[in-house]
Amino acid sequence: MKALCYNESLSLEPRYPEPQPGPEEALVGVRLAGICATDLEITQGYMSFRGVLGHEFVGVVLRGPRAWRGKRVVAEINCVCGRCELCQRGLSNHCRRRTVIGIQGRDGVFAEQVALPVRNLHEVPETVTDEQAVFVEPLAAAYQVVKQYPIEKRMHVTVIGSGRLGLLVAQVLQATGCELEVVGRNELTLNFCEKRGIRTVPVAEVRPRGDRDVVVECSGSPAGLELALRLLRPRGMLILKSTHAEAAPLNLAPVVVNEITVLGSRCGPFPDALQALARGQVDVESMVSRTLPLDRGLEALAMAADPRYIKILLKVAS
Amino acid sequence: MKALCYNESLSLEPRYPEPQPGPEEALVGVRLAGICATDLEITQGYMSFRGVLGHEFVGVVLRGPRAWRGKRVVAEINCVCGRCELCQRGLSNHCRRRTVIGIQGRDGVFAEQVALPVRNLHEVPETVTDEQAVFVEPLAAAYQVVKQYPIEKRMHVTVIGSGRLGLLVAQVLQATGCELEVVGRNELTLNFCEKRGIRTVPVAEVRPRGDRDVVVECSGSPAGLELALRLLRPRGMLILKSTHAEAAPLNLAPVVVNEITVLGSRCGPFPDALQALARGQVDVESMVSRTLPLDRGLEALAMAADPRYIKILLKVAS
Repeated sequence: MKALCYNESLSLEPRYPEPQPGPEEALVGVRLAGICATDLEITQGYMSFRGVLGHEFVGVVLRGPRAWRGKRVVAEINCVCGRCELCQRGLSNHCRRRTVIGIQGRDGVFAEQVALPVRNLHEVPETVTDEQAVFVEPLAAAYQVVKQYPIEKRMHVTVIGSGRLGLLVAQVLQATGCELEVVGRNELTLNFCEKRGIRTVPVAEVRPRGDRDVVVECSGSPAGLELALRLLRPRGMLILKSTHAEAAPLNLAPVVVNEITVLGSRCGPFPDALQALARGQVDVESMVSRTLPLDRGLEALAMAADPRYIKILLKVAS
Repeated sequence: MKALCYNESLSLEPRYPEPQPGPEEALVGVRLAGICATDLEITQGYMSFRGVLGHEFVGVVLRGPRAWRGKRVVAEINCVCGRCELCQRGLSNHCRRRTVIGIQGRDGVFAEQVALPVRNLHEVPETVTDEQAVFVEPLAAAYQVVKQYPIEKRMHVTVIGSGRLGLLVAQVLQATGCELEVVGRNELTLNFCEKRGIRTVPVAEVRPRGDRDVVVECSGSPAGLELALRLLRPRGMLILKSTHAEAAPLNLAPVVVNEITVLGSRCGPFPDALQALARGQVDVESMVSRTLPLDRGLEALAMAADPRYIKILLKVAS
């Protein structure tokens, strides 16, 4: 089958071996996949990953338990053992023996087919299009913010970074009715926010007054993190959504002096994301800049790193 | 009066001007003062402080409201306005107009006399000696850990750093009955722990297994912070007690991937510390290595930086 692989360099493999589903796994035919910043970081060495890239997708079950066959599905990315002490404690996303689709020890979805644990699958409701469903995984990660820390109407909240993740987080936060602003440097994506009634501030015009209750860092840059610490009020909450491949000089004294809480936040609840898309509460389709066939995967990855585009999708099958 | 000052360099001033208490302030005669890591950092440029050093002390009220005269007192270090929005919200320790005794915009206690807001004073019970009372401020900071995050018996907790603050934090945590260990590099202070029934691990022998529920970072070193992130289980809690004067390279990806919570923690509740000392629940007197007269203040500061000593006190008056 065709597959977009990373093995110290990127390549489109025309005859990658077809996946063989193990017990309790299903074979899924990929229809549409999304490119995210983590895919790009992996091509810079993050997680030392080797294999088929990609973890955002919608597809159809080709082989597996009868109840699932033919169903249109998305899948949670952490494939877990269910038996270690973390799984037993309800922290299975952190399973010590986990593999992660297209990120850690398991082939991803930039391919015609992928083998996935049945327990990871979620059926996509008919009212949700493929173009929406491909956003379930990152949108779930955005919902994790409000799962971990309830945002209230009276709170002053800043999202730093108006990239793909920042736009999803901003839309999720907007629904809470909080006093929201998005700080970014990309006119295209800041306009996306303004059109939806979300206040924006270009990063060059930010004047930190140490009065924000919550800052969500989605820029993935050390400068974003330092700005976050200057924006927050004492006892404020900094939610970190972005991983970085490299260490950067950082002074954490403001965290101690201002008694800031820093909350690391990763994957989130698929049901919340599916429901929001089914109800049209989040606009993801306007974020799609281009959809390219898998054959043009290398070109698509390059476009995903280009600030003139927001979301790039890969069309694998109809 | 005599005073130990920092003004780009350290000096013992024989004729420093006597303080003039403002309205709602008392004049306090200092009896005994303690040297802490923050004093040493200030002499390295931290906070750009200029003036009389020192913020840990016990003294006697010489002038002020009748009810306070002659009372033996300790004092909270944040001198606040009581009117700004942070004071109004109950976050007066973070008052935007605050001065901090011997740290920010206000002379400290390494002097014969000091002027202090009456609202900052706490009377010392008769059962608490001067040698104990001088530890109230850092011990309160140690109690802040359990105020901010309730520690339960079943939790596995590591304190990194067996310096002065680490020893106080360890003793406060020991009283919770949690599964406690202290990681440090100083044989003298690790022995102090072992003698009190607290398990210790020399830092060279630590084998991180990512299974600690809570880590309290008291080493103030970038290496301590990185170790903390490797010791913690997913969704674990990292409490930062130490400030650093300089930025250090740091990779926060583990905070996101393992969804760690980082909690900055600074000053704490004086009543809890006074009560613990009155009841003999914390052994601070054994931490005193040497007590020197204020005249030998420069020598005392050098000793406080020497790992062969634990706590160095300055005797100012009887």
